[in-house]
Amino acid sequence: MKVIENSKLRVIPLGGLEQIGMNITAFEYEDSIIVVDCGLAFPEDDMLGIDLVIPDISYLKENSDKVKGFVFTHGHEDHIGAVPYILKELNVPLYATRLTMGLIERKLEEHDLMKTTKRRVVRPGQSINLGDFRIEFIKTNHSIQDAAALAIYSPAGIVVHTGDFKVDYTPVFGDAIDLQRFAEIGKKGVLALICESTNAERKGFTASERTLGHTFDTIFAEHENSRIIIATFASNVDRVQQIINSACKYGRKVVLEGRSMVNVISTAMDMGYLQVPDNTLISVEELNNYPDEKTVLITTGSQGESMAALSRMAANMHRKVMIKPGDTVIFSSNPIPGNEKAVSKVINELSMKGANVIFQDAHVSGHACQEEIKLIYTLVKPRYAIPVHGEFRHRKAQAELAADLGIPKDNIFLLKSGDVLELSDKRGGVVGHVQAGSVLVDGLGVGDVGNIVLRDRQHLAEDGIMIVALSMGPEGQVLAGPDIISRGFVYVRESEDLMEEARSVVEDALDGCLDRGITEWNKIKNTIRDSLGDFLWKRTKRNPMILPIIMDVSE
Amino acid sequence: MKVIENSKLRVIPLGGLEQIGMNITAFEYEDSIIVVDCGLAFPEDDMLGIDLVIPDISYLKENSDKVKGFVFTHGHEDHIGAVPYILKELNVPLYATRLTMGLIERKLEEHDLMKTTKRRVVRPGQSINLGDFRIEFIKTNHSIQDAAALAIYSPAGIVVHTGDFKVDYTPVFGDAIDLQRFAEIGKKGVLALICESTNAERKGFTASERTLGHTFDTIFAEHENSRIIIATFASNVDRVQQIINSACKYGRKVVLEGRSMVNVISTAMDMGYLQVPDNTLISVEELNNYPDEKTVLITTGSQGESMAALSRMAANMHRKVMIKPGDTVIFSSNPIPGNEKAVSKVINELSMKGANVIFQDAHVSGHACQEEIKLIYTLVKPRYAIPVHGEFRHRKAQAELAADLGIPKDNIFLLKSGDVLELSDKRGGVVGHVQAGSVLVDGLGVGDVGNIVLRDRQHLAEDGIMIVALSMGPEGQVLAGPDIISRGFVYVRESEDLMEEARSVVEDALDGCLDRGITEWNKIKNTIRDSLGDFLWKRTKRNPMILPIIMDVSE
Repeated sequence: MKVIENSKLRVIPLGGLEQIGMNITAFEYEDSIIVVDCGLAFPEDDMLGIDLVIPDISYLKENSDKVKGFVFTHGHEDHIGAVPYILKELNVPLYATRLTMGLIERKLEEHDLMKTTKRRVVRPGQSINLGDFRIEFIKTNHSIQDAAALAIYSPAGIVVHTGDFKVDYTPVFGDAIDLQRFAEIGKKGVLALICESTNAERKGFTASERTLGHTFDTIFAEHENSRIIIATFASNVDRVQQIINSACKYGRKVVLEGRSMVNVISTAMDMGYLQVPDNTLISVEELNNYPDEKTVLITTGSQGESMAALSRMAANMHRKVMIKPGDTVIFSSNPIPGNEKAVSKVINELSMKGANVIFQDAHVSGHACQEEIKLIYTLVKPRYAIPVHGEFRHRKAQAELAADLGIPKDNIFLLKSGDVLELSDKRGGVVGHVQAGSVLVDGLGVGDVGNIVLRDRQHLAEDGIMIVALSMGPEGQVLAGPDIISRGFVYVRESEDLMEEARSVVEDALDGCLDRGITEWNKIKNTIRDSLGDFLWKRTKRNPMILPIIMDVSE
Repeated sequence: MKVIENSKLRVIPLGGLEQIGMNITAFEYEDSIIVVDCGLAFPEDDMLGIDLVIPDISYLKENSDKVKGFVFTHGHEDHIGAVPYILKELNVPLYATRLTMGLIERKLEEHDLMKTTKRRVVRPGQSINLGDFRIEFIKTNHSIQDAAALAIYSPAGIVVHTGDFKVDYTPVFGDAIDLQRFAEIGKKGVLALICESTNAERKGFTASERTLGHTFDTIFAEHENSRIIIATFASNVDRVQQIINSACKYGRKVVLEGRSMVNVISTAMDMGYLQVPDNTLISVEELNNYPDEKTVLITTGSQGESMAALSRMAANMHRKVMIKPGDTVIFSSNPIPGNEKAVSKVINELSMKGANVIFQDAHVSGHACQEEIKLIYTLVKPRYAIPVHGEFRHRKAQAELAADLGIPKDNIFLLKSGDVLELSDKRGGVVGHVQAGSVLVDGLGVGDVGNIVLRDRQHLAEDGIMIVALSMGPEGQVLAGPDIISRGFVYVRESEDLMEEARSVVEDALDGCLDRGITEWNKIKNTIRDSLGDFLWKRTKRNPMILPIIMDVSE
């Protein structure tokens, strides 16, 4: 593809920068838009009752005729999870490598979208043409197989998007990252590098996944007399492969436990990404047919998720597996920031049941550390640097690496969601802003829980609610009530006096209204709210939500 | 004190084992009870709206005539914080070292308890007699000055309680831990060692506080052209001393910022625990009179606490200090487990404002690592080991160290709150259980928020509430309503249809009751709850709290 002098490419992150996880970036050249990834995020602590967070794709919907397709770097939830939600609003073709597409298709099936969705599997090394763009998939390594970087060719120049990656010279399955191709493309001249930042604060090089093979062998050798339970990420097929390898070497049967573990691993086995000797896997029901020291469970729950299999075992809530004294439990994972306490809770519960818990040195990251990031920059030699994927501090750390490597500070962009970055061979800069960010999903509802609802939930969660109900006749006389009902406030049986006093306060307030000839309901409600609020604050230093309800019995 | 053969000492942890922070342990010998420490805990994530958690001292109240006094190891909140709450229920004398007592007295003043509380300052090396007990205070090191271990002499034998400690051969202020005295007491023969476990999973030795002096000098030298802001624990007076030392060396004025920083440091200065050259401290208002590179702020907020000074600066909500590009912000702290995400949020906000954030290598722990714990065991040579202070996993790690050092497993006790451990020179074991654990404090209320209220708050937080109000006449006819009001559920303006349908569902349910001659209010309420609940679940996959209110307009 020829570069047209001074032609302009736009890069628009639509949701992945402040809210970690929602990786989705639009690339726009004249009448063509392509989108890289479409992830979902899990709710922050203050998003009470929210199940999922998906990106706001208003901009894509407004420009739906331009959107040529979605292209995916790999099959993790934060890169593919929002696909079914987005497809319901915008039907576009999907392009991904084989395993990634396999995982996307499981979602499409669940949401009954298989028939209506055009899709194509792309092999590393292959390219696809979408409008004015050509997109080449480049083999990388990550904590899931079939991860790809993308070289996005446009008339304004080439953008390289790393996706999530590490440099693994000795991967467990398949080839090492195609560094030669990064170098070749770098030789052609690259307009911009979009590189992930997860480990940009960490010095050195991420260890090869293969190093864990030896670790598991050692653990199996040291614990040959006890049952072994290993928690890890369901999507880390190579990790599961290595555990299975050690299990076979030490003559143990393997149980897969946890819904996502069973799902992902069976998809991977069906597609040939996992080699399991016959008679190795057994069902959890068969566990009791074998001595403890001849079994290993590979389970979900490495992040302390309360409903995952390991957490249920730890809490004695798993129907089929009980933790026994002497069990060896291994966390083959690191806690994702924010999950530390939940993981610790599970470790404590397991320890209390007498399990021997190993939570160090049985994990390697799937993300590039500083030396790997510098390697990619040095091979690709981009004019512009766009650190993505990670908290601001991580992206800033990458920006500092890029500056150290000689990229001028003005050519390094730490974008916000919705920023429109315009790049040409002459100049680059943010030229505008489009609607972007988070849409909350709660139950079946997408986007109908907004700030007011969340604020109310916060208030209810902290202080509870006190409802004052009364019925009024046609002349404004009180026919029934005021009745006071509370939920989430002090426990009523222990605070009968308080509730009785509260009732008097409301009655006084009502009398006051009557005396002053106030009959307007809103004013009466405000008076109740103010006087009861003052009373409760003085007496309890608490501030429940007060909800006056007046019923009209005028007929 | 002579050891009486086969006489029995009871050790009862009253709140500090599952709920980290509430350190309080009772020691009972015949008619004497003494209590070591009286801490408070901060609420867990599922304790919605709770301000503080204090220990349940029912057992002490039932035996109030036996309780001779409270003895304190050091002045951290998790060891002294519950004192004012407990004193209101149980007026007993307090014994502590000088700084510890100074910090306790600040609490007594706030709660107007100074006049009614008997107290005595004890120097390290001194002993006090309380009933059948003699208690000797032994100098230790910790992240606050005047920390003490306790040798508790009873007719059943000696118990050594380390409190929180580290072995610091080169402390910033005062003497190193009195290892000779630990050895001497060990020579006498020690019944039990109660040792803290915070760092029992960490190999090696905790570095000396003094090593940070050099670190701060280096940081000040490397950032001589920018303002420096350092967040640390207010109670770590030695840390503040070292920052002030570096500030003086580099000619900077020092601002203390944050309420607890100002309070603790002024108490420490008044008492002589901190040496500050004249004209070093300035007020935050004077900050603008000096160039940035001539100032340093020492501030609270190292744990990302949302209302602390640093968090307010990061969020642009501090009235007097604005973060500027080029500011150097140092976290002289590690996140306490559970605070990682909050700390990261503050780091991100500071980075976005252009600050250069340093969050590694500017902190040393105040707690003993494995080699220090082994040292104390080896000096004290206890018959029984009672690991305390830390999550179960940490206490178990200490139990493993104790076993490695040759203490028989049956002599190592991992207690639960309320366990009554009986020890004699012949045998030791848990012989019973008393009421103990957590009391929740919410506003002015102590203990009036129980499980029902918390469960309601959880429900309200996740799904909101839907209130159905109606007025009924004497014959059970509906005079007004049903009115439906929701809070924390979907936003009503966007869901008017849903609310309209919900109203019909309730009306149908009411008609059904009428048809079947059901007039009992409880049954009507249940019918409303069930039918509306089913409807909402089907339509939204959400499950709000449904609260039917029937008003009686029969007069």
